Amino acid sequence: MSPAEYRTYLVTQQSLSAGRSTLEIVEAAIDGGVDVVQLREKETDAEWRYELGLELRELTADAGVDLLVNDRIDIAQAIDADGVHVGQSDLPVGVARELLGPDAIIGCSTSTLEEARQAAAEGADYLGIGTIYGTTSKDVATQKDGVGPERVSEIIEAVSLPAVGIGGITADNAGPVVEAGATGVAVISEITAADDPQAATEALASAVETARYRDDGRRDDD
Amino acid sequence: MSPAEYRTYLVTQQSLSAGRSTLEIVEAAIDGGVDVVQLREKETDAEWRYELGLELRELTADAGVDLLVNDRIDIAQAIDADGVHVGQSDLPVGVARELLGPDAIIGCSTSTLEEARQAAAEGADYLGIGTIYGTTSKDVATQKDGVGPERVSEIIEAVSLPAVGIGGITADNAGPVVEAGATGVAVISEITAADDPQAATEALASAVETARYRDDGRRDDD
Repeated sequence: MSPAEYRTYLVTQQSLSAGRSTLEIVEAAIDGGVDVVQLREKETDAEWRYELGLELRELTADAGVDLLVNDRIDIAQAIDADGVHVGQSDLPVGVARELLGPDAIIGCSTSTLEEARQAAAEGADYLGIGTIYGTTSKDVATQKDGVGPERVSEIIEAVSLPAVGIGGITADNAGPVVEAGATGVAVISEITAADDPQAATEALASAVETARYRDDGRRDDD
Repeated sequence: MSPAEYRTYLVTQQSLSAGRSTLEIVEAAIDGGVDVVQLREKETDAEWRYELGLELRELTADAGVDLLVNDRIDIAQAIDADGVHVGQSDLPVGVARELLGPDAIIGCSTSTLEEARQAAAEGADYLGIGTIYGTTSKDVATQKDGVGPERVSEIIEAVSLPAVGIGGITADNAGPVVEAGATGVAVISEITAADDPQAATEALASAVETARYRDDGRRDDD
C-alpha cells in the first residue's frame, strides 16, 4: 500500500490494552478496516517484539494491511515488515533507507517544518506529524499541549510527502487533522484502550472519510 | 580478530565513567591493550549510540581492535561494526546470523549450559558466560551471586566455542575465570570506573596472561 493511502493507522502498545493481547487488538482493528499497523511496544525487549512481529506479519499480510516497525530496522528485516517508522532520536532516515533499500516504506515523526524537510531530504516516504493534541490525559485532550492541525497544513504545504497526524486523536477530533491535509490519523489509545477496538477503528475510519469528503468539496470550490 | 583471541574485552557504559566520555574511556583502554570493545549504552537512544558508534569505529579500526554492538543489529550494520553481542532477551543468534551473514562476529550471553548449546547451534562465534561473580556491588564482588568460574569449565567442556567471562571481574579475580577455560574477561566498571582506565586495562590484560601461562603450564603436566 502507498502511504498516501494511510487513513487509519494503529500504533501498538500492549500496556494500554486493558489486559488484552496486542494480537487481539490488531485483529479487531483489521476487522474495523485499519490500513497500517506499527509495531511499537517500546518498553519490551527485542525478542518479545520479534516473536510478536512474526505473528503480526502473518495477520497483516493475510489482510493486505501494511506492517511497520518502530525504531528497530533489524526487527523489521527479521520479520519481513513493509518498513519502519523512526523518531527524531532513532537511527536517521538516511541510514534506514541505506539498510532497507528503495522499496521499504520509511516514515518519520516530525513536529516542526525543519524536521519534516530533513526527513524528506533523507528519503522518508511519509511523515507522522504531532503531537497534534495533548496526550497527557486522553480524556481531556486539548490542543494546548500539541502542535495542532495547523502544523499539518504548514508542513504539507512546504513538503510534498503524505502525512498522518498523531497524538491525542479521537474520532471526535480527527476531522480537522484531515482537513488540514493529513491522509489520515495514527492512534494508540483510541483503538487499543477502547472497549470495542473494532468499532473504535470503524468510527475513526468514518471520521477520516467524512473529513476527506468535506475537504474534497471545499477544494472543488477553490 | 578471532574471538579466540579475546583477552580483555570492554563493554561500554558512559553512566559509570565518572563524567568522562565513552570515547575517552575507549581511547585509554586501547592504549592499555584492550582487544575488543562492545558498544552497549543500553539506556541511551539509537541516534546517540549510532553517532558514538561511528566515532568508536574509526578509533578501533585504526587500532586493530574489534568493535561489536550490543543487541542492535541495525546499528552494527550502520557503523560497519565487526559484529554484535546478543543477550537472551535480544534477537536470536540465528536471526543475527541471517541478517549479518557468515563473516560477522556474533557473541551471545549465556549463563547455563542449555543456553550455550542453543547459541552454538544457532551459529554463535563466542560466548559471554556470566554473571561470574556478583555484580550488585562491585567493591564486595563475591561468587555468591554469580555462576562462578566452574560454570565456565562446565560450558567450555561441552560446547566448542571460545568464551569470555563477564560479571564482577577485576584484575584480582580474573585468574580463576581464565584457568577455567575462558580466553579472557569482559568488564564494564573495572575499566570504565577506574581512576586510570589505561592502567586498569593493563592490569586486567596482565592478570589474564598470567593465568593463561599458569594454565598452559598445568595442561603440559597432564
